[in-house]
Amino acid sequence: MKRIGILTSGGDAPGMNAAIRAVARKAMHEGLEVYGINYGYAGLVAGDIFKMDPITVGDKIQRGGTFLYSARYPEFAQVEGQLKGIEQLKKFGIEALVVIGGDGSYHGALRLTEHGYNAIGLPGTIDNDIPFTDQTIGFDTAVNTVLESIDRIRDTAASHERTFVVEVMGRGAGDIALWAGVAGGAQDIIIPEHDFDVKAVADKLRTSREHGQKHAVIVLAEGVMHADEFSEKLSEYGDFHLRSTVLGHVVRGGAPTASDRVLASRLGSKAVELLLEGKGGVALGIEKNEIIAHDMLDLFNHKHHAMLDLYDLNEDLAY
Amino acid sequence: MKRIGILTSGGDAPGMNAAIRAVARKAMHEGLEVYGINYGYAGLVAGDIFKMDPITVGDKIQRGGTFLYSARYPEFAQVEGQLKGIEQLKKFGIEALVVIGGDGSYHGALRLTEHGYNAIGLPGTIDNDIPFTDQTIGFDTAVNTVLESIDRIRDTAASHERTFVVEVMGRGAGDIALWAGVAGGAQDIIIPEHDFDVKAVADKLRTSREHGQKHAVIVLAEGVMHADEFSEKLSEYGDFHLRSTVLGHVVRGGAPTASDRVLASRLGSKAVELLLEGKGGVALGIEKNEIIAHDMLDLFNHKHHAMLDLYDLNEDLAY
Amino acid sequence: MKRIGILTSGGDAPGMNAAIRAVARKAMHEGLEVYGINYGYAGLVAGDIFKMDPITVGDKIQRGGTFLYSARYPEFAQVEGQLKGIEQLKKFGIEALVVIGGDGSYHGALRLTEHGYNAIGLPGTIDNDIPFTDQTIGFDTAVNTVLESIDRIRDTAASHERTFVVEVMGRGAGDIALWAGVAGGAQDIIIPEHDFDVKAVADKLRTSREHGQKHAVIVLAEGVMHADEFSEKLSEYGDFHLRSTVLGHVVRGGAPTASDRVLASRLGSKAVELLLEGKGGVALGIEKNEIIAHDMLDLFNHKHHAMLDLYDLNEDLAY
Amino acid sequence: MKRIGILTSGGDAPGMNAAIRAVARKAMHEGLEVYGINYGYAGLVAGDIFKMDPITVGDKIQRGGTFLYSARYPEFAQVEGQLKGIEQLKKFGIEALVVIGGDGSYHGALRLTEHGYNAIGLPGTIDNDIPFTDQTIGFDTAVNTVLESIDRIRDTAASHERTFVVEVMGRGAGDIALWAGVAGGAQDIIIPEHDFDVKAVADKLRTSREHGQKHAVIVLAEGVMHADEFSEKLSEYGDFHLRSTVLGHVVRGGAPTASDRVLASRLGSKAVELLLEGKGGVALGIEKNEIIAHDMLDLFNHKHHAMLDLYDLNEDLAY
Repeated sequence: MKRIGILTSGGDAPGMNAAIRAVARKAMHEGLEVYGINYGYAGLVAGDIFKMDPITVGDKIQRGGTFLYSARYPEFAQVEGQLKGIEQLKKFGIEALVVIGGDGSYHGALRLTEHGYNAIGLPGTIDNDIPFTDQTIGFDTAVNTVLESIDRIRDTAASHERTFVVEVMGRGAGDIALWAGVAGGAQDIIIPEHDFDVKAVADKLRTSREHGQKHAVIVLAEGVMHADEFSEKLSEYGDFHLRSTVLGHVVRGGAPTASDRVLASRLGSKAVELLLEGKGGVALGIEKNEIIAHDMLDLFNHKHHAMLDLYDLNEDLAY
Repeated sequence: MKRIGILTSGGDAPGMNAAIRAVARKAMHEGLEVYGINYGYAGLVAGDIFKMDPITVGDKIQRGGTFLYSARYPEFAQVEGQLKGIEQLKKFGIEALVVIGGDGSYHGALRLTEHGYNAIGLPGTIDNDIPFTDQTIGFDTAVNTVLESIDRIRDTAASHERTFVVEVMGRGAGDIALWAGVAGGAQDIIIPEHDFDVKAVADKLRTSREHGQKHAVIVLAEGVMHADEFSEKLSEYGDFHLRSTVLGHVVRGGAPTASDRVLASRLGSKAVELLLEGKGGVALGIEKNEIIAHDMLDLFNHKHHAMLDLYDLNEDLAY
Repeated sequence: MKRIGILTSGGDAPGMNAAIRAVARKAMHEGLEVYGINYGYAGLVAGDIFKMDPITVGDKIQRGGTFLYSARYPEFAQVEGQLKGIEQLKKFGIEALVVIGGDGSYHGALRLTEHGYNAIGLPGTIDNDIPFTDQTIGFDTAVNTVLESIDRIRDTAASHERTFVVEVMGRGAGDIALWAGVAGGAQDIIIPEHDFDVKAVADKLRTSREHGQKHAVIVLAEGVMHADEFSEKLSEYGDFHLRSTVLGHVVRGGAPTASDRVLASRLGSKAVELLLEGKGGVALGIEKNEIIAHDMLDLFNHKHHAMLDLYDLNEDLAY
Repeated sequence: MKRIGILTSGGDAPGMNAAIRAVARKAMHEGLEVYGINYGYAGLVAGDIFKMDPITVGDKIQRGGTFLYSARYPEFAQVEGQLKGIEQLKKFGIEALVVIGGDGSYHGALRLTEHGYNAIGLPGTIDNDIPFTDQTIGFDTAVNTVLESIDRIRDTAASHERTFVVEVMGRGAGDIALWAGVAGGAQDIIIPEHDFDVKAVADKLRTSREHGQKHAVIVLAEGVMHADEFSEKLSEYGDFHLRSTVLGHVVRGGAPTASDRVLASRLGSKAVELLLEGKGGVALGIEKNEIIAHDMLDLFNHKHHAMLDLYDLNEDLAY
C-alpha cells in the first residue's frame, strides 16, 4: 500500500482536524502518500481530492470543524454512487481510506471495503452515540462547551432565583446532557434513556426551594422534547420562575479539548497501523482507555449505551 | 452622611458585582458605613438589608450576576411602595443609595431622591440601551460572549458551507448585534436602528458564494424579529444552506471582562464621591472615556443611540 | 456511623470543591452528618471544624481551588499530632473522614484509620502522580489550561517563526507535559520518564525548518530542568529563534473541566459508600473507567507510571 | 492610486489580523488592489509580496498573531535598506502602504512617505505604549488574558492564603499591569510610572491579613523589576506566604477580544480613507472614542501616558 485517503462525513465535531492530522502525519511517517478528500463522500465522487504534505495539517490540531469540509450525500448508499467513488480512488491511486464521522458514515466505508478498498472508521461526533466506544471525538469538547454555558446561566439563575431548563444537543442520545448535567450540578437531568416524571421534578424543585436553594438548572436532552414544551409541563405544577434556553449549534464548534485531541491522535495513528496490516471494514473506539477495533457489521448490530450510573449519581448529589 | 445602601435592579449583568464592590470599598475608604439591600426595590421594601464589611465584597469582582440578587418590583412605581422603602431606610439609618441597573430602575432612584434620599444610578445592563453612556456595565462581556459563540458557529458554518442566522439579545437595541457582528466578521447585521432589505441580504450572500466565500454568519438583533422568521424570509430568495440559532440567557452570565470591571470600578467610586458632595437624582455614564453625571430627568427625555458608523463599516468590510 | 469529616490537603487542584460537594451531598443523602475541616490536618488539630448543610456546598462545583483551604502540616507525621487530631474528632463526634489531596496526604489518613477512624483518600492533584489511578482530580483541567496557553504561544511562534520552550508543572511527573504536548502538537516533549538527546531535538528542529515548518513548540516538564537551562543547551546546536516561558501557578486554578467534575463526583460518592461499608485506609482512583479502591499501604509501594505510549505517538505525529 | 501594500512589524499582537483584513477589504471595496508583504520590512526588501483577494483575509479576523508574519529588521533604518524596499514597491506597483506595529515601525513608514510612498501607521502592540491613542490593537486582549490568569491564581492564593506577585508584560509601560490590576482586584499595582514603597506594600498586606483578608495578589509591571526580586524585597518585611509568577509570552497570543477587533476594523478602514485622500506619514489612534490621525513626527516627540487615575482608584478600592 502506497497511498491512502482521508475524508470527514456527517456533522462536524471538534477534534476532526486533530484526527485528520494524526492520520496524515502517521501515514507519512510510515512512508505513505496521503490524499485529502473534500466534502466527504460527495467530494470523493466528484474527485475533489488533493495531495497533502506534512504542512497541510500543520496548525490544524487546535481548530474546530473540519478543514476537509463535510457534506451529506445519501447517493453514496447506492452502488452507482460507490462505483463513481471507486473510479476516483483508482484515478488518484488511493488504495485505502480513513473515514471520520458518525456511524452513518461507516456504511459507505464498509461498502468501499467490500469493493476492495479498505476503509477504517473513526468515531467523530459530539453526540457520543456510537457503539463500542466510551467516547467519541468531539464529545468532551461539546460537554465542556455546554458546561461553560451552564456555569454562565447559573449566574443569572442565582441572581434572580430562577429555574432554568437548558436544552442540549445529542440527537437521540442523552450523553451530553448526562455529563454536562452532573458536571454542572443540575438538579435534574432529563434524557431519552431514562424515564422521568414531571411531577417528581416539580416536587424536588419545591422542596429544595423550601430548604433555601432558590435557583436550579435542569438539563434536558433534545431527544426528549423541546425546552419550551418541558417548561410548560413543569409550570403546571407550580411557579418555579422558569426560563428555558436552547444551546444549539454553538456547541458543535470551538477548539477541541486536550482529551479530544489526544483521543483523535491515538485513533488516527491506530487507523494507519491497521490499514498497513491490511485491515478494513472496522471502526475504532476507546474502551476502558484502550483503542479497540470492531467490525463495522458487528457495530451496526449494537446500540450505544449512555453511562446511566451518572444518572443515579446525580440523583444522589443534587439538592 | 454616615451610611449608604446599595442595590441592584432589573436584569443581571456581568460587572454588577464589581460595581457593588467598588461602591462599598470606596465608601468604607471614605469612612462611611455600607448596607447591602437584597432583591432590589423589593428587598428594600421588605427590609432585606444587611451591613457589609470589606470582606463581604472580597472575591466578588470576578463573578457574574449580582450577589445582592435582583428582582422586578413594579409596586415601587407607586408612592405607597416608595414610602415603605423609606421606612426601611430610616430604620437602618441609610441616608443615600447607589442603584445599579437599567434605566427602568432609575425611576425608583429619582423618587427616593425627591423624598430626600439621594440616589445615584449606575448603568448595569448587557443591552447598552441607556442614554448618556457609551457603554453600560455588562455590555463588553456580553459582546465577547456572543463573539465567542459566533467564532464557534463559524467552525460549523465553514465545515458545511452554511449560512447561519444568529439571533442575539439586546431588547430594543442593536448594540450587541452591531459590535459582535463587526467583531465576528458578519456578512450582515440586522438591527432595529437600521432598515434592511431581505432581498439585498440574499443577493449579497449569492454573490459572495459565487466568489468562493461559501459560508456566512448573519447577526440578528432580537429586537427585529425571531431568527426563524428571518431565516424563512431569507430562504424565499434562494437556498443558502441556512441554519438559525438563538443565543439566549447564556449571554447574561460569566465573569466580566477587564473593561467591564474597570468601568464598574470607576463608576462605583465616582458615585460615592457624588453622594459625599450631596448629589442625588443623577445617573453616571462613560462618555468619550470620562465618567459623567446626568440628571435622571434629563436622561428620561433622551434616547440611546447605537453607534451606526459600525453598521456602515461592516457593509464595507464584509464580503 | 453518623458523622463524617472532609478535608483537603496538599496543593490545591481544580475539582477539589466538586469532590467536597459530592462527599457532602452523598453523605447527607445517606443520612449522615457532615463536617468540613478547614486547612487540612492543621485545621483538624486546631479544631477548625464546622457543620455543613446541603447549601454549604451549593454553587461550589464550578469553583477552582478548595473552599476548605489547604495547608502543609508536617507535624501530623508525628503521633503527637495525630492524637491531637483525634481529640478533635472525638470532640466533634466525627467517626470517619474523606481526605482529598496528593499521596502525601494519604499517610495521615492511614494513621487515622489505624487509630480507629476510617479515612479514605481521593486523589486531588494536578500532577497526576498518584499510583492506581489513570487520572487525578485536577489533571484534566491543568492539561487544558496548559493547552490553551500553548495555543496562544503558537500564535506568536508562528508570527515570528520562533521555537518556544514551554515549561509546565508536574513536579516529578511528566504527565501534564505529555498530554498537553500531544494535544498541542508539540514538536518534542521532554519528560523525566524518558531520556532525551538535545542534539536530536536540534536536528529535528533544523530538518523541519528546512522543510518549511518554521515554528515549533517544545513542551518541557519542570521535573527535567528549567526552561532557560534547556534553551541554553539547545542553542548550542544552532539558532532556532528560541524563547522560553514558564507556565507557573496559573495552571493550578480555574473552573474545573467537565471530566474533572464528573470524576470528582464519582470518587466522592464512592468514598461515602465505602465508609458506610466500614472501610478505611484505602485510596480511590479511576482505572479503565472504573472507580477502584486500593489499600494505602499497597499504594505506597507502587509508583505512578506516565502513559509513555503517548510519547511514542508524539514522535510519529510531530513534524 | 491603484495598489496598496500592508505589512506588520514588531511584536505580534492580537487584532493585527483583524486590522489586515479591514485594510484589505476596505481597499478592495474602494476598488484598490491589495498586496500583502510578509515579514515586515525584511519581507518588503526581499520582495516577499503577494496579491490578496477578499478570501485571503477570510476567516482571519478571529486569529491571534499575524498571518503576514513579523520580523525585526534594523537595516531598514538605513537609506540603503529603504531604497531596496522602494525598488520592490516599484516592481509590484505598490503606491502606498499601511504599517501595523509599534511606534518603532512607524520610523520606516515615515521614511517611505518621505520617499514618496505614503504610509500610514496603525498602533499594533499589546503594551499600549504609543502616544496619541487611548488603546492600541492587542491591548484589551492582553489585559483580559492577564486577568484570566489572575482569576486562576486567586483560586490558589485563596486556598492557601498566599500572596502572589504576578509579573506582567508591558515593556516600559505599566498599562497592562494597571488595567489588569484594577480588574483583578489587586491589592497593589507596581508600575514604572508611579513610585512605590515596599514597606508600605508590606504594611498594607499585614493590615489586611489582620483584618481577615488572608490572600492577596500584587500585579507587577515587568518594567519595574523581576517578580522574584520584588518578592525578595517584600519578604524582608514579613512572611506573607509569597509566591511569584511571571506571565510571559502567553499574553501575546489568542483570539482578539471584540474591542480589539472593532478597533482594528475602524483603524484599518480609516487608514484606507486617508491613503485615498493622499495622506501619508501619519499614525492613527483612538482618542475619546474617535479615530484620529497624528503626524508621525509629532508623535515621535510625545510620550504615552498611562491612565494614572486608575492607580489612585485601586488604592481606594483595595483592601
